[in-house]
Amino acid sequence: MLNKNLQLNEAGQLKHFLSIEGLKRQHLIDILDTAEPFSNVSEQAVKNVPILRGKTIINLFFEASTRTRTTFELAAQRLSADVLNINISTSATSKGESLMDMLHNFESMHCDMFVVRHNQSGAAHFIAEHVSPHVSVINAGDGCHEHPSQAMLDMFTIRRHKQDFADLKVAIVGDILHSRVARSQIHALTTLGVSEVRVVAPETLLPNDISSFGVHVFHNMREALDGVDVVIMLRLQKERMQGALLPSEGEYYYQYGLTPKKLACAKKDAIVMHPGPINRGVEIASEVADGPQSVILEQVSNGIAVRMAVMAMVLGRSSKFNKAS
Amino acid sequence: MLNKNLQLNEAGQLKHFLSIEGLKRQHLIDILDTAEPFSNVSEQAVKNVPILRGKTIINLFFEASTRTRTTFELAAQRLSADVLNINISTSATSKGESLMDMLHNFESMHCDMFVVRHNQSGAAHFIAEHVSPHVSVINAGDGCHEHPSQAMLDMFTIRRHKQDFADLKVAIVGDILHSRVARSQIHALTTLGVSEVRVVAPETLLPNDISSFGVHVFHNMREALDGVDVVIMLRLQKERMQGALLPSEGEYYYQYGLTPKKLACAKKDAIVMHPGPINRGVEIASEVADGPQSVILEQVSNGIAVRMAVMAMVLGRSSKFNKAS
Amino acid sequence: MLNKNLQLNEAGQLKHFLSIEGLKRQHLIDILDTAEPFSNVSEQAVKNVPILRGKTIINLFFEASTRTRTTFELAAQRLSADVLNINISTSATSKGESLMDMLHNFESMHCDMFVVRHNQSGAAHFIAEHVSPHVSVINAGDGCHEHPSQAMLDMFTIRRHKQDFADLKVAIVGDILHSRVARSQIHALTTLGVSEVRVVAPETLLPNDISSFGVHVFHNMREALDGVDVVIMLRLQKERMQGALLPSEGEYYYQYGLTPKKLACAKKDAIVMHPGPINRGVEIASEVADGPQSVILEQVSNGIAVRMAVMAMVLGRSSKFNKAS
Repeated sequence: MLNKNLQLNEAGQLKHFLSIEGLKRQHLIDILDTAEPFSNVSEQAVKNVPILRGKTIINLFFEASTRTRTTFELAAQRLSADVLNINISTSATSKGESLMDMLHNFESMHCDMFVVRHNQSGAAHFIAEHVSPHVSVINAGDGCHEHPSQAMLDMFTIRRHKQDFADLKVAIVGDILHSRVARSQIHALTTLGVSEVRVVAPETLLPNDISSFGVHVFHNMREALDGVDVVIMLRLQKERMQGALLPSEGEYYYQYGLTPKKLACAKKDAIVMHPGPINRGVEIASEVADGPQSVILEQVSNGIAVRMAVMAMVLGRSSKFNKAS
Repeated sequence: MLNKNLQLNEAGQLKHFLSIEGLKRQHLIDILDTAEPFSNVSEQAVKNVPILRGKTIINLFFEASTRTRTTFELAAQRLSADVLNINISTSATSKGESLMDMLHNFESMHCDMFVVRHNQSGAAHFIAEHVSPHVSVINAGDGCHEHPSQAMLDMFTIRRHKQDFADLKVAIVGDILHSRVARSQIHALTTLGVSEVRVVAPETLLPNDISSFGVHVFHNMREALDGVDVVIMLRLQKERMQGALLPSEGEYYYQYGLTPKKLACAKKDAIVMHPGPINRGVEIASEVADGPQSVILEQVSNGIAVRMAVMAMVLGRSSKFNKAS
Repeated sequence: MLNKNLQLNEAGQLKHFLSIEGLKRQHLIDILDTAEPFSNVSEQAVKNVPILRGKTIINLFFEASTRTRTTFELAAQRLSADVLNINISTSATSKGESLMDMLHNFESMHCDMFVVRHNQSGAAHFIAEHVSPHVSVINAGDGCHEHPSQAMLDMFTIRRHKQDFADLKVAIVGDILHSRVARSQIHALTTLGVSEVRVVAPETLLPNDISSFGVHVFHNMREALDGVDVVIMLRLQKERMQGALLPSEGEYYYQYGLTPKKLACAKKDAIVMHPGPINRGVEIASEVADGPQSVILEQVSNGIAVRMAVMAMVLGRSSKFNKAS
């Protein structure tokens, strides 16, 4: 239903960044390769590069998210862009303005990019379909659909530790049903040619069409983690815990929480990932979250680099940096 | 009652920008001329000029307004100024501090400009009367009084399309009574020597002293639009619709909504303007708002240029740009 | 209980700025000396220096404070740092994330400094104990404990007017019990060797352990002000006025409000200080607040300079400026 090529310009380059679905392996590799030099920027004494100087980026957040908004804002600052934060729930929509009119307004102010967070699936695609040709759209999470920059920072983190994707076994554990992160991760892992992607969840937290995802479904955590190289834990939303989909928080932790014992089923050098914020003692034990196999905080650092890369790429400025550095 | 020359320094140059009333034709022309080169800035790849680098601008918003605040913030960013947004309803006034004490505090932090939005008429004048000599004040809308930067972006847009003001007939349609935008527009149009300014509204939405405005009053839309060059629609505030001043939303649209049929009474090359946000199907038909005669989105673009110009002028920095460009 | 040397690195230089307690005279003198050239920056046409260019500063405000946040934000802008404002009450803590996890997240984004405001005493120390070595922490007020940057801007203001601290008599008037400002001031004044520090308050607004502070306690305002060089008034919090600790607002003003008559007991060239925001007619008469002896607005200006100095010092960049200027 969604136009898969909406993300690409006529030369096949990234114009918007909306979903992993619809991108080819080479696009994902390009993002990872572009992010590499950017990861050094944040470690320099002066953490700025002038790549997007004089560009205007608008963070259009229809859903509150300090963490994601902060990383996009920092990424934009370090690219020397001008950033505006618009929190839509408190904004002009209360004056009855339509979304399209609001977008056309911001476009007329000559903004170059919208970073969009919305609680409805497809919102970023919808916006990208309707913006002017000079504006790029980045999806910072839409409903239960996709969160592609999160998936790419995860891939970046995996590549740093495991180099080649081809031989990897990766397990994704938790609320697959409601997770835009999981959807994007599955697309990215399969596109990058990971040999086996496993999902582990109670039946009630799996999508009906999970068989079409090209993944192996497990309900037993120890079986699922057996011999994997990467364990990706998902956040259990509080509202799920209180709903009818789960017996109890304690029961969930007993069956699906990542404890040192369960982690021992994975390869010895398996890495543990989590998109954050983590619920200690709900989906992950503190010993694991803070343990030697955890790369959770590296994911955060890599998130800045990957978002800088994507922002530079959609505005056609990434080559400037690669040449300069 | 208001000191008309408060806006000007001893050399007769713009020191504050508070109202169109009190400014002479040459002041308005100066603003329009200064804005011309700034309109190119936002169309460049690097949308920044260093004119207000190292200046501190405080957006003092006593009334929420994402749209107006955003355009002033973008204008300031593109002039390379440092900007602080202060939302007063959530600020120190809750600690019982007086407005004057708060202003003197910000002044002591060496800020250079206040951009003030307030729901009381005269607020910006009051502040300008009391600030230190090194601080400039820009009125971003005060009660039902004036919204001068909106009027000047409208004049800029008219001049782009119609060149000379002298021969123009302009109709302003809607809630004149409560509109600070209309008041500023009427002052600007008459000061710039427009040959005929018409206002069209139900009796209940006209000020009692409308006869003193130097405008022609109409109650019938078709008569009012007959042969005009410019149609300016005003936003109908929701609270008016629910009040006793209007029969019903549908009745208002029937009589005063700008439809293609009514617009046909104007000149063929008439332009349609609206300060936004628009209420589609209330004061304007979508076919007109999105049609070939609409310049509504141009107004938004021009708003950045005009605000950059005014900000540079009140700080005495506009000549720097004109020389450089 | 608090590690007194947490603020210093191995070379004895300021690494964090958490409390005046624990710092030696030379540290305070260093801060004052470093602030001197910064006070010129805000008076220049271009109020920026590139000292913290490419650094990321996060204002972590667990307690709302427009005034303090604004001065830190302006100070950071004028040092050319990138600033992020995080209002914690509306932030990720609502997702149940622990404070430590949130901090580690921001650290992983390669931020360089946290400016922390918290309603619990010791919060900034706690954070400084747990942050990564590359991050500095500045206490912008913690509970009833300390507000060290306020105390240092006060010392800066006193030194500007009185040069030598040794011979001064200083009176601090008001709610000593709940005032983090007073605690920091007392430590600073005694550390700088002021000859006599007096505190004046009703018994109910004095800490139990006031005798250990090295100050002279007065209950009568006229006696307390007799012959002093500096009068520091404290803000009377509204919630105190309504509580059981005070008879009435009028009674408080009668006994402890600074009127011209009471001020006449001080030396003729005594200066009057107040951290703001002031309650006119509660703790201070308008004639005094706006009078020739008041240096209240100078304190605000000096606050920018002192905060710039401290920010530059904790990141080890202050020498760059002193050499350059």
